[in-house]
Amino acid sequence: AGADSQANAFTTRLAFLTEADQLKSVLRASRLMAGDRFENSAEHSWHIMLYAWVLAENAPPGVSVDRVLQMLLLHDIVEIDAGDNPIHGQVDHAAQAAKEQAAAKRLFGLLPDTQCNTFTTLWHEFEAADSPDARFAKAVDRFQTPVANLETGGGSWVDYKVTYAQLEARVQPAIAAGSPGLWDWLQPQLAAHFQSVEAVHH
Amino acid sequence: AGADSQANAFTTRLAFLTEADQLKSVLRASRLMAGDRFENSAEHSWHIMLYAWVLAENAPPGVSVDRVLQMLLLHDIVEIDAGDNPIHGQVDHAAQAAKEQAAAKRLFGLLPDTQCNTFTTLWHEFEAADSPDARFAKAVDRFQTPVANLETGGGSWVDYKVTYAQLEARVQPAIAAGSPGLWDWLQPQLAAHFQSVEAVHH
Ligand SMILES: [Ca+2]
Repeated sequence: AGADSQANAFTTRLAFLTEADQLKSVLRASRLMAGDRFENSAEHSWHIMLYAWVLAENAPPGVSVDRVLQMLLLHDIVEIDAGDNPIHGQVDHAAQAAKEQAAAKRLFGLLPDTQCNTFTTLWHEFEAADSPDARFAKAVDRFQTPVANLETGGGSWVDYKVTYAQLEARVQPAIAAGSPGLWDWLQPQLAAHFQSVEAVHH
Repeated sequence: AGADSQANAFTTRLAFLTEADQLKSVLRASRLMAGDRFENSAEHSWHIMLYAWVLAENAPPGVSVDRVLQMLLLHDIVEIDAGDNPIHGQVDHAAQAAKEQAAAKRLFGLLPDTQCNTFTTLWHEFEAADSPDARFAKAVDRFQTPVANLETGGGSWVDYKVTYAQLEARVQPAIAAGSPGLWDWLQPQLAAHFQSVEAVHH
């Protein structure tokens, strides 16, 4: 029975890992910095894990970067069923949250029970921004797109006609709550960028 | 000077993170499981981190999954300059290794000194398979493509006309050294797949 249940755990886990492959086909609203195509949620997850690690000095005291990396590794998997929710789009938030809950249940439910519980708990902690680890993870998740847009002359802000006031309302709370240092660096860069763009348009 | 050098570390780190975006454009020889395009090295890195975490029970005692995730997060970054090295292709290994060393020097060299040292040391440990952590990371890296190929009726084995004997020679040593449990599961699956394919061809 020991060998059987081990073989069974293998089959279960591989079914989850195979399903996870589909995250590479979920497209986001933002483009690669080279600009040639939209970014997918799998490569985005890789990139923000790298952000979290490289920028770890900006995490508040007590944050465990290892737990942050785990959260970011799994944070977008629900999008396989629920799709990406563009920050500048119009979304029914309650409907989207219900879709994501159902997605977590189905997808993490492919794993053996203990692992399903670990993943589900960690994902809820992230979603609810329920700890310094989760808040830092969310800050990094919100931080990457503005940085990429600054590097590429506006990126998705141009597509969605975003103003500075809208952007600040959408990204400041999460970034400043999880990492004041990241916000202190980002805010003047954003202000300068939008000032020059808005000067051109008026 | 404290504030200046902090702003400077920020600029340096963001230059590295921006450069890292290019890993999303390095294509591998393997396709997505849906088969519609080649996989890139950034989304591959995300996926094998998930493999490492989900399959952690198959790591030998003493392996730190957190360190394994760090290794896998950075293990392919050198490909931005050096390109992907397909396991079934013909490669000048010494020339490839020299290119990767130069790539590590340039890319990790974009980071502040302490972080450059951490990344370089961890990458060398991975490359040299110099610890149980590195060997488990390498085992997982070698394990993912065969699993994807099994799921998709052969995948890159068909493109490269790979035989069972060639495949075993190329993947068994790294997988069995880093995780005997993964090899014990994989070997009979591979044998059965190639037996049925070779029966059709003879
Ligand atoms: Ca690799």
